[in-house]
Amino acid sequence: MNIDEQIAYLTKGAVDVVRAEELKAKLERSRKTKKPLKVKVGFDPSAPDIHLGHTVLMRKMKHFQDLGHDVVFLIGDFTGLIGDPTGKSKTRPQLTREEIARNAETYKEQVFKILHPEKTIVDFNSRWLGALGSEGLVRLASRYTVARMLERDDFKKRYEAGQPIAIHEFLYPLAQAYDSVALEVDFELGGTDQLFNLLVGRDIMREYGLEAQVVLTTPLLEGLDGVEKMSKSLENYVGVTEPPQEMFGKLMSITDELMWRYYELLTDLSLKEIEALKAKGEPMEAKMQLARRIIADFHSKEAADEAQRHFDSVIRKKEVPDEIPEHRVSKGKILLSQLLLDGKLAPSRSEARRLIDQGAVSLAGERASSDREVEIAGSLVLKVGKRRFLKIVCE
Amino acid sequence: MNIDEQIAYLTKGAVDVVRAEELKAKLERSRKTKKPLKVKVGFDPSAPDIHLGHTVLMRKMKHFQDLGHDVVFLIGDFTGLIGDPTGKSKTRPQLTREEIARNAETYKEQVFKILHPEKTIVDFNSRWLGALGSEGLVRLASRYTVARMLERDDFKKRYEAGQPIAIHEFLYPLAQAYDSVALEVDFELGGTDQLFNLLVGRDIMREYGLEAQVVLTTPLLEGLDGVEKMSKSLENYVGVTEPPQEMFGKLMSITDELMWRYYELLTDLSLKEIEALKAKGEPMEAKMQLARRIIADFHSKEAADEAQRHFDSVIRKKEVPDEIPEHRVSKGKILLSQLLLDGKLAPSRSEARRLIDQGAVSLAGERASSDREVEIAGSLVLKVGKRRFLKIVCE
Repeated sequence: MNIDEQIAYLTKGAVDVVRAEELKAKLERSRKTKKPLKVKVGFDPSAPDIHLGHTVLMRKMKHFQDLGHDVVFLIGDFTGLIGDPTGKSKTRPQLTREEIARNAETYKEQVFKILHPEKTIVDFNSRWLGALGSEGLVRLASRYTVARMLERDDFKKRYEAGQPIAIHEFLYPLAQAYDSVALEVDFELGGTDQLFNLLVGRDIMREYGLEAQVVLTTPLLEGLDGVEKMSKSLENYVGVTEPPQEMFGKLMSITDELMWRYYELLTDLSLKEIEALKAKGEPMEAKMQLARRIIADFHSKEAADEAQRHFDSVIRKKEVPDEIPEHRVSKGKILLSQLLLDGKLAPSRSEARRLIDQGAVSLAGERASSDREVEIAGSLVLKVGKRRFLKIVCE
Repeated sequence: MNIDEQIAYLTKGAVDVVRAEELKAKLERSRKTKKPLKVKVGFDPSAPDIHLGHTVLMRKMKHFQDLGHDVVFLIGDFTGLIGDPTGKSKTRPQLTREEIARNAETYKEQVFKILHPEKTIVDFNSRWLGALGSEGLVRLASRYTVARMLERDDFKKRYEAGQPIAIHEFLYPLAQAYDSVALEVDFELGGTDQLFNLLVGRDIMREYGLEAQVVLTTPLLEGLDGVEKMSKSLENYVGVTEPPQEMFGKLMSITDELMWRYYELLTDLSLKEIEALKAKGEPMEAKMQLARRIIADFHSKEAADEAQRHFDSVIRKKEVPDEIPEHRVSKGKILLSQLLLDGKLAPSRSEARRLIDQGAVSLAGERASSDREVEIAGSLVLKVGKRRFLKIVCE
């Protein structure tokens, strides 16, 4: 790739690039000197269960690795002691050393599903922030002002609302900035909510006589609902350790619009390739391809194929499994809720009606919209939810 | 002394006592358990030249020692690295380790002129603040909020005026508070400008599960002008290492009102004794006694007597020293400025006139208010300033 192609590859899906001209200069210098650039990304060890939202950033790290650069996957075991207050309306609880160590291990197990292991330096910021000592931390804290810190959006809101900000929270962006000083990095990547902290890194690097890092932010990925940010607490996430079939099903449930967004942020396809896919006009096929790609990333190609088959047979074609229990009834009419009760698919008539009203019940492949009398003849499949089947057989 | 007398002795001249009932409880407990109380006073090693202003606090420390308690003279060699921002409109420069060590030595040389050496523990807060490490400092900083810190008067003013406050300045009151935790003190004393910091100490001690220290503040001593706070930069101070004669002269120049204030803050006399002195109606005698007391504190009783004699003979009675140079003139009239020029007491006529206009010149014990012809007969003493004498002798 030439420099312009490199820039396009690295900035695909990025929100902020501070500054683009410095990015270009660094890439050119690296090409000239054949010295790889150093990219730092910090991860807070308080959230070790990685979901697709986190992988947006990891994939961006991988893009730098694809071009031959070195990436530091920095586990903030020291800053984890502080608790990053970014975007939080309350002070985060501090983690113990033991919790941090456990969480860091979980991270490491997951990160190499995306990153190239040989180009990834896994590091812990307690190495230098611990060594900094109380005196060093004081000197670091002397390099930034209270007023500038209070300009950060969430601090400002909390301060103005009279919500407490503990003083150690001001030390977080400074400690994170000092990571860049200690590692002498060329780039720091982070989510858009990290922009302030990343820019503090530029200031502090200059205070310590270093060239400022170039800052690049990635968007916060929308969850499966397409509205809220993907997060565990909102239950709109796909965890990278979830079983392939769960992943496939969840990803098939997203809107077409969100699918293209996921293509941009969760695959290595170039914008050109994505446009080509869009132009084909086969969104269902594209969505399955997206699901297969993501499963292949976190499990294997075989697992992706298997998940596709499962989806095709059970979910998509609504086929019933080979062996399902039977329930014998007399030929004739019966109230659907009574049938559910008799077949032990509902514990009570009212619960049976609730399931019907929710649209969870189908008979002979047709969803029941309300409780009503149904005609039974021959054999029919009664289904509740996605996985409970009962074969109704006339006596 | 009974408890009430002890309280009166300890709170003589104090401004704030937080809280009086806790002070009483601690004194009672100490009497019962026969365990001395621990009193902490921090000194910033950036100002090692002690003047009488500093001794107000030291004398209060001595009062606790007089009652059998232990005093920690704490040299803030760690906090000196930070630079106490109290009352400053600008961030103080940080000191180097070398400067701090040098200043601390100077302190130690001076402090035992007032304090009882055997009841004084000289300590350095780098011992525990250094050992605290960056992690400990972060945890300490988590115990206090930005909003409460910004309530401090000088921070508030600076913040509202848009003047920068460096973040490490927020760490100062916390580090000072941690001194109280590390030493588990019963009391912290300080000037009134330290009240906020001392109260932070109470909060932080409770945060660390300790009984809160009782806080006692002493007033800021007015300088010789009786208006401004005594300070080196305002040149209204008496340094404790100044020669006895200088001290005597400076102290005799203060107003009677200020003299009683100095009696209260710079001597161990009880308020009752001071009242008795006042009732005598001999302010000049009282002022000389004050000067002698202070000189005896910082030099010796003999030095005080000698300074008194010098003052009586040279300054007060305006006597001339035994041996002074002579200048022979013809009998008759001569312009005073010409006489100064001829006698080499001024380098030029204009300089001579300037000295006369300043009131610095006297002839035969009479101050000249303007340049004029004077009659010379017999022998006369011409004096410029306080120490330059010339005997004018007619030929």
